[in-house]
Parts: sequence; C-alpha cells; structure tokens
Amino acid sequence: MRRKVLTIDTMNANVKKVEYAVRGPIVIRAVQLERCLEEGVKKPFDEVIKANIGDAQAMGQQPITFFRQVLALCTYPDLLESHKFPDDAKDRARRILQACGGHSLGSYTACAGVARDHNAGAVFKERRDGGISCDPDNIYLTTGASDGIVTMLKLLTAGEGRTRTGVMISIPQYPLYSAALAELGAVQINYYLNEEKCWSLDITELQRSHLAAKQLCNPRVLCIINPGNPTGQVQSRQCIEDVIRFAAKEHLFLMADEVYQDNVYAEGCAFHSFKKVLFEMGPEFSYIVQLTSFHTTSKCYMGECGLRGGYMEVINVDPEVKAQLTKLVSVRLCPPVPGQVVMAVSVQPPQPGEPSHAQFIKERTATLNDLAQKAKLTEDILNMVPGIRCNPVQGAMYSFPRITLPDRAVKEAKAKGQEPDMFYCMKLLDETGICLVPGSGFGQKDGTYHFRMTILPPADKLKILLSKVQEFHVRFLEQYSASA
Amino acid sequence: MRRKVLTIDTMNANVKKVEYAVRGPIVIRAVQLERCLEEGVKKPFDEVIKANIGDAQAMGQQPITFFRQVLALCTYPDLLESHKFPDDAKDRARRILQACGGHSLGSYTACAGVARDHNAGAVFKERRDGGISCDPDNIYLTTGASDGIVTMLKLLTAGEGRTRTGVMISIPQYPLYSAALAELGAVQINYYLNEEKCWSLDITELQRSHLAAKQLCNPRVLCIINPGNPTGQVQSRQCIEDVIRFAAKEHLFLMADEVYQDNVYAEGCAFHSFKKVLFEMGPEFSYIVQLTSFHTTSKCYMGECGLRGGYMEVINVDPEVKAQLTKLVSVRLCPPVPGQVVMAVSVQPPQPGEPSHAQFIKERTATLNDLAQKAKLTEDILNMVPGIRCNPVQGAMYSFPRITLPDRAVKEAKAKGQEPDMFYCMKLLDETGICLVPGSGFGQKDGTYHFRMTILPPADKLKILLSKVQEFHVRFLEQYSASA
Repeated sequence: MRRKVLTIDTMNANVKKVEYAVRGPIVIRAVQLERCLEEGVKKPFDEVIKANIGDAQAMGQQPITFFRQVLALCTYPDLLESHKFPDDAKDRARRILQACGGHSLGSYTACAGVARDHNAGAVFKERRDGGISCDPDNIYLTTGASDGIVTMLKLLTAGEGRTRTGVMISIPQYPLYSAALAELGAVQINYYLNEEKCWSLDITELQRSHLAAKQLCNPRVLCIINPGNPTGQVQSRQCIEDVIRFAAKEHLFLMADEVYQDNVYAEGCAFHSFKKVLFEMGPEFSYIVQLTSFHTTSKCYMGECGLRGGYMEVINVDPEVKAQLTKLVSVRLCPPVPGQVVMAVSVQPPQPGEPSHAQFIKERTATLNDLAQKAKLTEDILNMVPGIRCNPVQGAMYSFPRITLPDRAVKEAKAKGQEPDMFYCMKLLDETGICLVPGSGFGQKDGTYHFRMTILPPADKLKILLSKVQEFHVRFLEQYSASA
Repeated sequence: MRRKVLTIDTMNANVKKVEYAVRGPIVIRAVQLERCLEEGVKKPFDEVIKANIGDAQAMGQQPITFFRQVLALCTYPDLLESHKFPDDAKDRARRILQACGGHSLGSYTACAGVARDHNAGAVFKERRDGGISCDPDNIYLTTGASDGIVTMLKLLTAGEGRTRTGVMISIPQYPLYSAALAELGAVQINYYLNEEKCWSLDITELQRSHLAAKQLCNPRVLCIINPGNPTGQVQSRQCIEDVIRFAAKEHLFLMADEVYQDNVYAEGCAFHSFKKVLFEMGPEFSYIVQLTSFHTTSKCYMGECGLRGGYMEVINVDPEVKAQLTKLVSVRLCPPVPGQVVMAVSVQPPQPGEPSHAQFIKERTATLNDLAQKAKLTEDILNMVPGIRCNPVQGAMYSFPRITLPDRAVKEAKAKGQEPDMFYCMKLLDETGICLVPGSGFGQKDGTYHFRMTILPPADKLKILLSKVQEFHVRFLEQYSASA
C-alpha cells in the first residue's frame, strides 16, 4: 500500500511538540464521559462538571445586556425601529454601522478594526491609565488575545542556533505561550514564580533564568501575565517597576498579558497596567522600553469568549515595524467584526446619565462580586483539606493549589507513563465527574504537583465540586498511603 | 541612544518577505485620497471607488435576511419572544443555542465548532456532493477560509534545504498563498495558468513545474483555486480528474480552495467539487489521494466577510494526524461563534415548505443574477477598450484583464523602481479615484501586465468605473505612445 503524503511521521515536527493541556487528554476523556451519561451508562456521578477552562458564560455567567443589545442591533438593523431597545444602544449601533463598509457587519474592516476607527481604544487607555495619551495607530484589534500574542511572538522570532530568539515565560504559565514558542521554533526560557510568596515574581529569579539562557540563545522577550493565569496572583506596583527596570537593563521586549485586569478580588490588591507604570517612571524608561499589552472580550466581567474579540497596544515600536505588523495582520483580512464591536463597546461602556448606565453598573458589579465570593470560597474550602495548600486567589479566574501525592501514587503514575498529577486528575474525573487540569500542563517546580481549577461554576455547583474534591483527596491519600 | 529590541533589522526575516497586494500600497494611497476628499481637498474625482477586494457587502450586496435573523436571535435571545421573527428562524436559533455551552454565543465551542455539533457540515456535503457521505470528524470550522489554508500549510511544512516542503500554486494566485509560504519558510512552486485558454490549467504545465521544483525541494502539496481568484475561470470536470490523477501519480496532497463554489456565471460552466470527482473516480483514487477542501461565509451569495466564518473538510487523513490538527487549532480555542452560526445555517438553508424558504430563494437568486450580469458587463466593456483584453469572467468575483503598456511607460515605471502595472494602477487611482490591484501582486508571466478588478460595485457604479477605466486607458496609451 502506497504511503500517504501527510502522516504523523512526515508532518511539521514543531507542531508535534505543541502541547495544550487546557484541552488535552483530560478534556477528551470528560467529553467521552458526558456521552456515556447521555447514553444512560451508569457512572458514580450524574454529571460532568468542567472547571478546566476559563469559559465564563458556559458556566452560567450572564452577558452584559447592553453589549448584546448593541450587537443584535448591528446584526439586524431592522431592530433599530423597535421600541424594545434603549436609545443609547441604538445610538451606539448606528455609530458603529456608520464606520462599517456598506454600513454592514458583514464587511471587512481595516486590519486595525472598526473599534479603532471608532476611537474607542484611545479613550479607554486614557481613562484607565490616568490620562496617559494613546496613539490610535498603536492599537491593533485581534481575534481574542491569543491571536495578538502569537502575532507579536512571530514578529520577534529570529536568528538560528545560539542567536535564536529566547522568550522568558513564567512557570506555571498559560500553555498558549509554550505552544506558540514550539510552533515558531523560538527558545522557551522558564522563570519560576514564588509559590511560598503567593506566586509573586522575584527579580533575582528573573536574573538567574536570564543569565542561564544567555548561554543557549538570545533572550529578547519577557512575558508577564498579570493578574496571573493559572496562579491567580496580582502583581504589586513595586514589582512591575522592578520588572520594567530589569527589561530596560537586559534589553528585553515586554509582553504584558493583562486580560484579567478587572478580575481583582483580594483586599489590598489593585491592577496596575504596565503602560501606566512605565510612563510614570519617566522618560528614562518610557522612551526606551518596548511594550505590548493585550486585552480581550473573553475575560473580566464580559466573558464573551465565543466572539473572539481582543486588541493590543504596541508602545515604542518604530513606524516601519508597525507597517510590517499591519501587513502581516492584513493577510488574514480582519478580526471578526462582532468581537470588534463588543471590544469597542466594552472600552466605552454606558456613561452616567445615559439610559443603560444603571443596569450596566448593576450587572458588572454583580458578576465581579460573585466571582470575588467564589474566589474566597475556593481558597477557604481547599485549604481545609489535608494535603492541599492553596494560595489566595487574588485575581483572574483560577486557583492553582499544591497537592501532596503519596510516593506510591507517584510510582504508580510513573509506571503508567503518566505525570503524577495527570494520574490524580484522571482518577478524580473517573470517580467524581470533575474535570480539572493537572499542574504539569502549566509547568511547575520538579517534585511538586498541582491542579488548575476555575472558580467559574455557579456557587451551588462550586460547593458540590469542592466537597467532591475534598472527599476524593482524602480517599486518595488513604488509598495510596496505606501499606501495600 | 540605545537601540530598541525589535527593529526592522532584528525582526523575523520571513515576515518581511510576506507580500499582500490586496491591501498593499495602492490601498493605503486610496485611503489617503478618501481622507483628502473628506477634508475638502480638490481632486479630479468626487469619490474613491474600491474594486480591490472581494468585500461584497461593503459594495452594497445585501445580507441574506434569514441568516441575520438567526444570528440576531442567538445574540439576544429575548428576541425569541418577538413576533417580528419567523418561526423557522426561531427554531434554528433555539437549536444552535442548545448546542452552545451555557446556551450562549459567548462560550467557546469545541475546536471543531458548534456547526459540527449541529451536524450541518455533513448534511451540506452530502447534498452538494451527490450523496457522497461525509464524516463529521473530517470537518473543522475555521476563522474564514484563510485560517484553514494556513493551518493545513503549517501541518504540511517540514524538512530543510533540499527536503523542504514545496507547495505548487497557480500563477496568477491569491496572495494569501505566497504570504503563508513566506511566513512558514516553505518553498513556493509556480505553475502558470493558460491565459490564452481562458486561464485553464494544463497538466503539461503542472508536470514542467513539478519536475523543475524537484531539483530544489520536496514538492508535497498542490493548491487549486476553483473558481479562480484572481482569474475567474471555472475548471471543467475533465480537468479536475486530470489534476487528481497527477496528484496521485506524483504523491501530492491536494488543497482545493472552493470558496467561490456558488459564484458560477458562464453558460456551460458548472462547479464540480474535488471531493465528488475524487470519489467518483473509484477506490484506486478515493482511498489514496489526500485532499482538503475549503469554504467560507465570506463569498458566494452570503458575502459575510466580517463574521470570519469558514470550514474545511480533510479527506484520507490519518486519525493521529487529525488529533494533531485538533490540538493545533485548540490552542486558539475556537473560531468566532457568530461566523460558525452563519456557516452552519448557510449549509442548511431554509427548505421548501418552511416559512423563510421563498424569501431565501428570492434573495439568493437576486444576488447571484446580479453578479452574473456584472460579470458579463465587465467582460464586454473591458474588451471594447483597445489595449485591454479580458477573458470571460466564468465565476468568482474578479476580472483579470491583460493590459498593453507602451514601452515608454514601462521604462518610466522601472526608472521609479515600480512594477509597470503598479505604476499604471497608481496613476489610475490618482487621476480617477478608482482602486484596482496590479497584476504583479498576484504573479503573471514575465513581460505581461494585468490588473484585478472586482465585479462587486453596484451596476450603476460599475458602469461609471468601467467607463473611467476606458477613458483613462485611452489617455494613458496616447500619453506614452506619443513621441517624446
């Protein structure tokens, strides 16, 4: 039999190296289990609860009414005649359609997007960043934040062998980063967050990691996720200043993944944008350090993952490089326009005095308060379990607790060729129907084990989930600690 | 002054090689001219007419009402209570929301998409392809067709130097292909379409091109665009069979870009899908030849470019390669859900007896008839101009006429460092406000010159456009043919 052209042996080797735990084997197994339940197969649980992915609306988070009204009006402009929609939603929809080719959402936009024409990005950054100006030419609309991150990494990847671009990423990390670096053939440089200090970022660890990497590649990029994914920490202003100083000293391009900027829950924590801190540090830094900041419609109080909206702002990037960036993104024509619309509206939400303002504030507050309560609940209950230790969920949508696994479990996992925390999570899934992602999918210090769990399920379901995890963990410890 | 990390000199060299004429310098100039007109600067024209990009709704094509109704209902489900929407649109919206996480368009879908859950892809292919079955596991939803094309090229790119993957593309080509190959560092192999035979594909030319390329790389992929972009030809069934035989013989993976499958206008022409022809050729071919076919919401009678909907069907690809593909696309989470919705609905449009059927048929027919008339009009008027020769626009949305340029114009262009047809198109734009794309942006035989013009402007505007091109061309010939 003649061999096929494309086989597992002849395909792109870099693609084979890509890993993406958030939708890895554990999720494939969860989907199988769901099908079994649908088909009436008996399992020790009635439903599969997925806490593996930051998919807020799938877990019951409600969309912001105003955003959906504007989008429905733009989609089907006959509704502009309906009395069921508030005037400010109609005004906004009219302005957006005015900026669209043929006054239709079905037209391509400029690569930078309708939201840029609409000047929303500029307004947003100025407000959030305390009046620091924003050049609309620095805003690029994207297909979710992932698209922007991959595009910037692509621009920054160059060289061969010892001169190959090295990219510093936090461990634990969000696996988009390692996946993109594998695909691009760039060098991944790990710096470890300090679990003992609530997953904080130590500059000495950045220095260690950078120094070691210089032997192997050309470290050019430093990626920060703040608030942290999967680790849920919120960086202090001081820490951000230190990171900027480090980037300036070591000649690194900063990529600030700030998609959880509204998801800050812990007392004493606040979100500081890298841009604002950079500009407040004065021209010695603000004229020199290159920075890209990423945002999305998918997280925060919006939770509009399915629309794939996002944008990035590039700072201190030369016009000729921006021209290359514009050309590169033009090949894909434009980001999805519905996502652009919601991105634009979310950075210019209803203002006081406008008809939809009160409801907007009410909905946003309710969603963020609910998340804050679930963050606290998750931390409190997990820390009651012997053998689980959970840092405070200061922000984002995840807890990343450390789990103690008995030696015998570790040995059994390794005998099966599995990471011990994958073994643990797979068993948890099979016995309880709960779907978490093992820490090994995000990276962790050798010999430590974790899982990532979202705080997104509705409170009543989250309580069930946490008590099931608790019971399972106790049972697991008993089973594997008992003498053979 | 300290050098920046990311500069034009330190950026990814492959990205610098990317070219994308459809949005290149000519379009940047067109946007500048539009701004001038808005600011009241006097120009020899009142408006810029863009015929550079297949952006149907921007040119006034109307969206299909049923598609927009379903999408509005999914976006803002309160509308399910409204009496303004037909029952079949509501039913469809309910079924789609049922398949969405949290019953919301704001959730991620499986990487393969809600449309796959919805089983629409399968239904479509079975109907169009004369009952040939379709495995839903072979369908991948994409962010427009571009996304699918780049993803497949990425999977197929491997090797170094002489073993590097070579990809055969038609010249003239749609520049997404050359751009993707430059970015991936794969080898572009040109085969020339036969302009004298209405841009048909000659197998002898495929053989020539393949043989020459084998000296330089490992030719593994053959890309076909049918109906053709930018050339507007429709392939005969015989030609498709010959191409499949050639691919089988030379061990090539077939990529069939079939995004214009409903855009067929010329008498005696019909669209034949590669899949259908492959399966009808019997097991000798249908079990062996690997094929991916691409489709989108952006073209045909839909014209929903801004939604970035699309899908691909992979045939004869091993399960382990599909698992790699699934993993790769999972990293980007999912294609935009509004695009998925319209893709799903467009492959299962209203059926006879359903409330929206008559209007759907009326709208689709009107759009396709209008395009057919404009295709004929374009061909007829351009062929009346001395020095312009235009093949019939059998399908797609473009004419790609050959233009005769006087030697003196060619010399003047070259002295300016411009391609002669870029020089021509730039002058046309500056003097008339008409924005076309020079043939050099798509590739053409040395010493020949063309432009690509869409047939999309409304008929009255298209007539103005064509008569301005006519006048300009005559003037241009006079100016450059006169003795110095």
